[in-house]
Amino acid sequence: MPAERPLVLLTGAAGRIGTAFRQAMGERFRFRLADLRTEGLALTPGGGHEIVRLDVRDAAAAAEACAGAEAVIHLAADPSPTADWASSLLPVNVNGTLNVLRGALAAGCRRVVFASSAHAVAGYPPGEVLPADAPPRPINLYGVSKACGEATCACFAARGLSSLAVRIGAYEAPWLHAHPDPHDLRAYLSPRDLNDLLMRCLVAVDIDYAIVAGVSANHPNRFDLAATRTLLGYAPRDDGFRVFGVTPPS
Amino acid sequence: MPAERPLVLLTGAAGRIGTAFRQAMGERFRFRLADLRTEGLALTPGGGHEIVRLDVRDAAAAAEACAGAEAVIHLAADPSPTADWASSLLPVNVNGTLNVLRGALAAGCRRVVFASSAHAVAGYPPGEVLPADAPPRPINLYGVSKACGEATCACFAARGLSSLAVRIGAYEAPWLHAHPDPHDLRAYLSPRDLNDLLMRCLVAVDIDYAIVAGVSANHPNRFDLAATRTLLGYAPRDDGFRVFGVTPPS
Repeated sequence: MPAERPLVLLTGAAGRIGTAFRQAMGERFRFRLADLRTEGLALTPGGGHEIVRLDVRDAAAAAEACAGAEAVIHLAADPSPTADWASSLLPVNVNGTLNVLRGALAAGCRRVVFASSAHAVAGYPPGEVLPADAPPRPINLYGVSKACGEATCACFAARGLSSLAVRIGAYEAPWLHAHPDPHDLRAYLSPRDLNDLLMRCLVAVDIDYAIVAGVSANHPNRFDLAATRTLLGYAPRDDGFRVFGVTPPS
Repeated sequence: MPAERPLVLLTGAAGRIGTAFRQAMGERFRFRLADLRTEGLALTPGGGHEIVRLDVRDAAAAAEACAGAEAVIHLAADPSPTADWASSLLPVNVNGTLNVLRGALAAGCRRVVFASSAHAVAGYPPGEVLPADAPPRPINLYGVSKACGEATCACFAARGLSSLAVRIGAYEAPWLHAHPDPHDLRAYLSPRDLNDLLMRCLVAVDIDYAIVAGVSANHPNRFDLAATRTLLGYAPRDDGFRVFGVTPPS
């Protein structure tokens, strides 16, 4: 009899990333699909999944959602680069991440995978190739909120909760097709590459804390992928310039 | 006739660092000495200084305190490594720093010097020598709050407000004399070295944003001082192991 699939809490499960991941990985993991609104959460193939309503601003609800989960993929966030700090980025992105980490630690989860963003390092010169864990240099408060989330993950790693922060680049989206700008394509991330990367983040062992590069195998690339390849065996298959038929900058 | 001394807003002016700095630099700068409680703020030599009551949790008050200042040294913070997040670290350290940066940008200040902390990187192995700008790796929420402050500084630098974050180590204190632990002495920072470093942070030109190492010339040292020496001409004179008569670890 095969071992039971591990239970993974997926926050922000109704978003684009969560939807693609649960559809691709529904037979490998059991999911607890959590989001502010649950009506969009169709069950994924494979069965055994759960759906819960979760507002990550609610610490008790976040703790409850973690109970029994082996790992958490924390995608829930206000994704708007122009979001307001006090009314949204602080309660949702900063405190929401703290609530999920506290809940996961209390529940004895083995791993939290945090959806950070390339916005955390958007302030470096556009042509520069960055190490995956370049010191934060955001240009907006959304990026600040993601840098805070990374630091909070590191803090909980020191308390025994292993965590990985994924600096997600320009995830496949309609606006990329409308305006395939070379700067975005250097940070392009295809759904199948992110699905593979998140899966590797869930199952990797012997890691306390790391920041990894969430981009496809773009040439040229915003991030140096070497450390992420070595750490996780990540082998991205897509290249933004090829996907969009754009000649790379020389 | 000598040029008028530049006006520097000093938040947290009544604390140990603020007190030492204004006493040493009162003839070079005019100070606006700001703190939650003003009764401890004796005027410094040189005259022309101001004293204002400031709670950095109050955004309007922080903006008002910045008016007319050429630069800001932002020391105000809850300094306790065990402080509570929601009731103190978040409103005082995180939002207080955002309030000061917003005020300084609106007031047209030329530079903000932010008192970050070696706590932002306390999670690296104890014997490791860190670059001044090592990616944050805090082990407590106080360190998280300082990492958030650094990221907020970087964000405002992108908006045109130059800032420097100083990762202050083990600043001269009675407890160091009682228990001169080698781990602390690697991060020792004497008052005269910090005074010199903060002065250099105020007057340096052509810097948008940087994180610098706030430690004396300890051997061995928690931080590699090379980048901070090059950037600012910082030339610390003290060595914690000599100051405390402790044999360095081999």
